[in-house]
Amino acid sequence: MKDEEKDTGRIEAFSDGVFAIAITLLALELKIPHTVEGGEEGLVRALVSQWPSYLSFVTSFCTILIMWGNHHEMFRHVRRVNTGFMVSNGFLLMLVTVVPFTTALISDYLNKVGAVVACAVYGGVFVLISIAYNLLWYAAAKDRALLRSGVPEQVIRKFTRNYRIGFPLYLLATVAAFVSPFVTIGICTALWVFWAFTMRRGEAGIHSS
Amino acid sequence: MKDEEKDTGRIEAFSDGVFAIAITLLALELKIPHTVEGGEEGLVRALVSQWPSYLSFVTSFCTILIMWGNHHEMFRHVRRVNTGFMVSNGFLLMLVTVVPFTTALISDYLNKVGAVVACAVYGGVFVLISIAYNLLWYAAAKDRALLRSGVPEQVIRKFTRNYRIGFPLYLLATVAAFVSPFVTIGICTALWVFWAFTMRRGEAGIHSS
Amino acid sequence: MKDEEKDTGRIEAFSDGVFAIAITLLALELKIPHTVEGGEEGLVRALVSQWPSYLSFVTSFCTILIMWGNHHEMFRHVRRVNTGFMVSNGFLLMLVTVVPFTTALISDYLNKVGAVVACAVYGGVFVLISIAYNLLWYAAAKDRALLRSGVPEQVIRKFTRNYRIGFPLYLLATVAAFVSPFVTIGICTALWVFWAFTMRRGEAGIHSS
Amino acid sequence: MKDEEKDTGRIEAFSDGVFAIAITLLALELKIPHTVEGGEEGLVRALVSQWPSYLSFVTSFCTILIMWGNHHEMFRHVRRVNTGFMVSNGFLLMLVTVVPFTTALISDYLNKVGAVVACAVYGGVFVLISIAYNLLWYAAAKDRALLRSGVPEQVIRKFTRNYRIGFPLYLLATVAAFVSPFVTIGICTALWVFWAFTMRRGEAGIHSS
Repeated sequence: MKDEEKDTGRIEAFSDGVFAIAITLLALELKIPHTVEGGEEGLVRALVSQWPSYLSFVTSFCTILIMWGNHHEMFRHVRRVNTGFMVSNGFLLMLVTVVPFTTALISDYLNKVGAVVACAVYGGVFVLISIAYNLLWYAAAKDRALLRSGVPEQVIRKFTRNYRIGFPLYLLATVAAFVSPFVTIGICTALWVFWAFTMRRGEAGIHSS
Repeated sequence: MKDEEKDTGRIEAFSDGVFAIAITLLALELKIPHTVEGGEEGLVRALVSQWPSYLSFVTSFCTILIMWGNHHEMFRHVRRVNTGFMVSNGFLLMLVTVVPFTTALISDYLNKVGAVVACAVYGGVFVLISIAYNLLWYAAAKDRALLRSGVPEQVIRKFTRNYRIGFPLYLLATVAAFVSPFVTIGICTALWVFWAFTMRRGEAGIHSS
Repeated sequence: MKDEEKDTGRIEAFSDGVFAIAITLLALELKIPHTVEGGEEGLVRALVSQWPSYLSFVTSFCTILIMWGNHHEMFRHVRRVNTGFMVSNGFLLMLVTVVPFTTALISDYLNKVGAVVACAVYGGVFVLISIAYNLLWYAAAKDRALLRSGVPEQVIRKFTRNYRIGFPLYLLATVAAFVSPFVTIGICTALWVFWAFTMRRGEAGIHSS
Repeated sequence: MKDEEKDTGRIEAFSDGVFAIAITLLALELKIPHTVEGGEEGLVRALVSQWPSYLSFVTSFCTILIMWGNHHEMFRHVRRVNTGFMVSNGFLLMLVTVVPFTTALISDYLNKVGAVVACAVYGGVFVLISIAYNLLWYAAAKDRALLRSGVPEQVIRKFTRNYRIGFPLYLLATVAAFVSPFVTIGICTALWVFWAFTMRRGEAGIHSS
């Protein structure tokens, strides 16, 4: 058992590293306006005109932060790993590293022709991420295969429900891009706020049981 | 209690990762002069003319380093986390990842029209960071909610005072940009020197009590 | 003995850091199409035309992930380090950091003249990486010099065999570039799938023995 | 005593992060040749003509790796930290993050006019790094202020001697740029080979005493 816990430790450390780097690379998409006319006010206007960058930066930062928090919460209940779990985690991390790319895409296209496609791609990656979380949790919780022994049934159900909710809602966010790109971003924002609060309560649930 | 200490451990590790990456990305703003005339001396002149890059790199590096040190000192006294603490920490980390962007902004504009706006933005992000530190400390120290049991009252007051001082001084640095951009950088430099010494003494205070 | 285990700990942590950063930097090669004509469909076409980027990103990501997993598995059996082991590990890490460069190379050239050379370079770096793994394992397993005492003979033979297989196959992948660049990528993909499954079984072998 | 060891732990982790990121960012300086004429051979020629990039990448990678190893060895003997030690470590890390910049500088200028200045700057940063190591070691070893109790005198003298040697030799490497840029790179290469072997032997010395 000792060996397997150590195993989880290194996967967590590696995953944490990937999350931390991906979240910090988001800020590389904030560009300096290089040629500015109209003096000091020109720079203000140039910075303000980059608002899609700031909006997409904040949305993606908070989403990755919450995804890291979720990953962290899930791993608290995981005792050991198997191939399916490792593959799902790898798939998840690959998608997380793609988020700076899709974020840059909506930064560039949110106030131009192309916004619909950009937001659909942005939402689509989150659909894939929610699939990865479901696969990861399924590998861990199916027959409690990889879980610690003390995890109460209600906690398992709470995680299962929270991850299941993600898939249809991110799908909705993706499709909504064809209505308005801002609906996509609105749903994504609403979702990370939702995760932020339910996950913590999930933890509280463990302590009270 | 065991579980909660472990919780703090992973948040510290993740935060350390973000600080370490953000501080290293600062150096990406140091640009190679690509087309140079006038032989060896031309390269010297080209490198010297980039002095705003070096100045802003050093200022930002030292500031992030001190902020990391402060974060570290604060977490030594924190036993567990709650939602407010997590959100404040996330807000803080988001702002830390923005520092390479604002640093690049003053690198580009310090000796051009636009310096005032660039320095005001640079200072403004530090104002937000000082707010984030105050929120984080408030979440931890209010009614000693998240603190370890052994922390003496004088240490709490010292932290509270140090964080409170940051907000008006960074606000002053931001406003000072309209007088002279160099006053902004001067105040920011004075502040990280101040933090560097008071925080360490804060630690000494703990050992002597 | 205590000191030496700690030694391994920091080398693992440093190596994990390099693997995590290199794998995340791969995504920086995904470029945003900047000037697009033909409206929303134009952006779709521009994104689709970048398929070599996506293919090479996925191949490299999975390969680095598996290499990290292998590194991790190997270090589970290593008790202490010596100069030869450190140098081999450094050589390995240097090559891992080069993978984002060779990945960008095939992204840019896979559907252009230059594909043969790009794929040969891509494969060639993996040939060098497989040499590095063989050197690392040789330093550890020769006379069981650096291994933990409990490692069964069959596990050592399995590792030796798995690493030996890598060298000729990556060499084949490199030479195959002159037939078709896609054969190179196909062999590289087949190999990471192979490693993914045999390594895990290697671990199972330890538990069952 | 417990608290102080933990303190060292986080400084090591943060330093390791900065070393790992800086070493991985070196590879970002390897550029893809974008417009190539003359078919497959044209790409070969374009890649070969970038040899200064490869040379400077390998030199800097090995140097940072050795510096990390040295840092690691030194910290094995350090029990606690003080302000002088923290400031020296911060100064050291700042210089380490600058190495990718100076490496890019010699990549760009090694086979052009500007090579002398580029190599002098490259060497100059290593002079500053060797000063930082001497300051760090002085803070730790002066009156054994921060060292563990069991460290033998001969180990302290070995470290002191190794760090003292660095300063004049890197100074020589810097001045040598005015003779030939390749002498600078040669001395830097000779030095990391030297450190690699003496440091390990230093460790052996501890075990035998």
